[in-house]
Amino acid sequence: MLSLAELQRRIDSDTLSADAAIAQSLEAIDARERDIGAFVRRGQTARAQNAGPLRGIAVGIKDIIDTADMPTEMGSPIYKGWQPRADAPVVAMLKAAGATIAGKTTTTAFAANDPTATLNPHNHGHTPGGSSSGSAAAVGAGMIPLALGTQTGGSVIRPASFCGVAAIKPTYRLLPTVGVKCFSWTLDTVGLFAAGVVDLAHGLAAMTGRSELLPQPAGSTPRIGVVLQDFAGEPEPAGTEALQIAIRAAERAGASVCALQLPEVVAEAWRIHPTVQDFEAHQAFAWEYRANYDAMPPLLRGRLDESKGTTAADYDAARRIADQARAALAGSFDDVDIMLTFSAPGAPPKGLSSTGDPRFNRLWTLMGLPCVNVPATIADGGLPVGVQVIARFGDDAGALAAARFVEEALARQ
Amino acid sequence: MLSLAELQRRIDSDTLSADAAIAQSLEAIDARERDIGAFVRRGQTARAQNAGPLRGIAVGIKDIIDTADMPTEMGSPIYKGWQPRADAPVVAMLKAAGATIAGKTTTTAFAANDPTATLNPHNHGHTPGGSSSGSAAAVGAGMIPLALGTQTGGSVIRPASFCGVAAIKPTYRLLPTVGVKCFSWTLDTVGLFAAGVVDLAHGLAAMTGRSELLPQPAGSTPRIGVVLQDFAGEPEPAGTEALQIAIRAAERAGASVCALQLPEVVAEAWRIHPTVQDFEAHQAFAWEYRANYDAMPPLLRGRLDESKGTTAADYDAARRIADQARAALAGSFDDVDIMLTFSAPGAPPKGLSSTGDPRFNRLWTLMGLPCVNVPATIADGGLPVGVQVIARFGDDAGALAAARFVEEALARQ
Repeated sequence: MLSLAELQRRIDSDTLSADAAIAQSLEAIDARERDIGAFVRRGQTARAQNAGPLRGIAVGIKDIIDTADMPTEMGSPIYKGWQPRADAPVVAMLKAAGATIAGKTTTTAFAANDPTATLNPHNHGHTPGGSSSGSAAAVGAGMIPLALGTQTGGSVIRPASFCGVAAIKPTYRLLPTVGVKCFSWTLDTVGLFAAGVVDLAHGLAAMTGRSELLPQPAGSTPRIGVVLQDFAGEPEPAGTEALQIAIRAAERAGASVCALQLPEVVAEAWRIHPTVQDFEAHQAFAWEYRANYDAMPPLLRGRLDESKGTTAADYDAARRIADQARAALAGSFDDVDIMLTFSAPGAPPKGLSSTGDPRFNRLWTLMGLPCVNVPATIADGGLPVGVQVIARFGDDAGALAAARFVEEALARQ
Repeated sequence: MLSLAELQRRIDSDTLSADAAIAQSLEAIDARERDIGAFVRRGQTARAQNAGPLRGIAVGIKDIIDTADMPTEMGSPIYKGWQPRADAPVVAMLKAAGATIAGKTTTTAFAANDPTATLNPHNHGHTPGGSSSGSAAAVGAGMIPLALGTQTGGSVIRPASFCGVAAIKPTYRLLPTVGVKCFSWTLDTVGLFAAGVVDLAHGLAAMTGRSELLPQPAGSTPRIGVVLQDFAGEPEPAGTEALQIAIRAAERAGASVCALQLPEVVAEAWRIHPTVQDFEAHQAFAWEYRANYDAMPPLLRGRLDESKGTTAADYDAARRIADQARAALAGSFDDVDIMLTFSAPGAPPKGLSSTGDPRFNRLWTLMGLPCVNVPATIADGGLPVGVQVIARFGDDAGALAAARFVEEALARQ
């Protein structure tokens, strides 16, 4: 993979020009894209900028995020050829930081569940996950050092786990969702994919101008609470193994690790995530559903058909539970610095008929907490499996620091 | 003015056809639009639908709200001729409820402070207020029975006060802001303008499908806490007079009225509203500011120039204050059902160089509480002045019921 931090180091020290760094990404795309299918469209004028912390960094943008100089087609024929006037703020932030937009990456239609044709770079017979399929696959295939995706259920952390890359779903609204096709405004979160945790930190710091997100000298070893999310069902053996490997590595590196039980209202919040998502989706997709019913992606349309009966009272009750769970979860961090759990049930499923299951992700999206995927192991078939590091609301720096600790502990094994 | 509820009654009882109701609005627009300038563009196919609670209701849509069959130009040459693909969810909700879109109404550029050419329907020498200038003026001039606007500081309640119409800024996110040009995602709120409070209730209930918002039989008289917002500076004599008139009317109608002091952190929240707004605006308008600096509206551009130095730390601190103030304000409702305060400092200012001052509105936008403007008196020059009724977070039904009580008390004077 292409390490953003390593590219930055070489560009800063003049051992690599920003132009050459971009050329390297474009060549990698030329070499691997035909096999993977991670891009919907490539930038016509993908040239390096000459200033900014992300100069020389080629970025892939999930195709539900508006770009002023490339169509944004939402993975759906309903938006075929649609050309937004403006860049979404997250794209403008990347450009202002010096990045080059390499192209638009594949997305399941409207970031729901209908799969794309993108292949997992580690095993072409398996899904790369979704909905941010192309962004995860393009970074995992070593085509680009940075990509943007979005998560409403598990659409950043899950494909990152499946493609063996690091990813962060930051705290709710750390990155604006303006100019990003909405699925559910309470849930939608823009996230980043990169080769490693340090690369994420540099990318997120450059986009936001928040220097506290930059990698810091290693501090005290984290107190880790392991969360099994029983309410979400059993993981597969590969998921359990990845978590055990990460726990052992963290303990060997000096972390204190304990099992953490979450308050009952948190399990309730897990259960009502679909109520919040679907009630808002009916509003967010009101025009598409009403004016383009036949052209809607079948799985999303079916989901909307089934959830038609969700009432405003159901939604209001669900939001109250979510509020209570957020408050209760804050207390769960009294004795631990981070939580550690599954990024996905197991390895990426075979075939392309499903993008996998977000059941270990959706709670954290609803809670708005920062989550980082750290690749932990390789299952049979060369398939990556990650683990998920979760920190307090607003503590993205803590999530990144702890994820780096886990990543380095795993590398030392 | 055209009463939505009265039109509904006549349509439901077959004494008026939906087609005739729409024709009546279109004729009123023909007769008055030349003098007022409330519309940017009129619907080409403004025909009545034959079902839904809002059939026969012609609606004006502020031109920062996306429409699939009419351009959405944001009041700015940067978006000249821009045609969105989809209707914003609030527009789709209106159409699904049977409404007819009569046209797009004028907006200050990007819903900021640069005035439009729209005139106040009650005195053409005065501003109709902003940023939802056309929506307030079109309802105030009797052209249409319902219009949508948005508020980030005071852009719904203030123009409603200036144009002598009822308006509601609902609880934060009761109506989705998807497909609405973003200024500040923490603040932007879609609101409704109509002739009276009952009309607002019917409109909002039809859009949201929330029957609890429909007018209920009068209950117990409300306990009213009067809030002077000293932190926001002194009102003008006309503002003070409007509030006194409303207090006397409410007391005569049997309400208990007391003066209410707000916790000090609430005043702090008032002070940091611009920090939240401007920090988010720099992100929301990142593309416009970076790629179209010269074409930006001068007042908004100046505001962005001045607030360039706002840091992420300033913003984070401001958001913490806002959170504390929301919690403290909830306690202020222990002894009162609603708060009553100024909708604007006074009557609409003379001339069109300013849309007026949102200083009595911005706190409530930041707090996310439902606010209703009730026209209270007519100052010299025939200029309307309203008062603002505010209820607990999520209690839009309570805000509407209390506003109706105040409105009826004023009518009985």
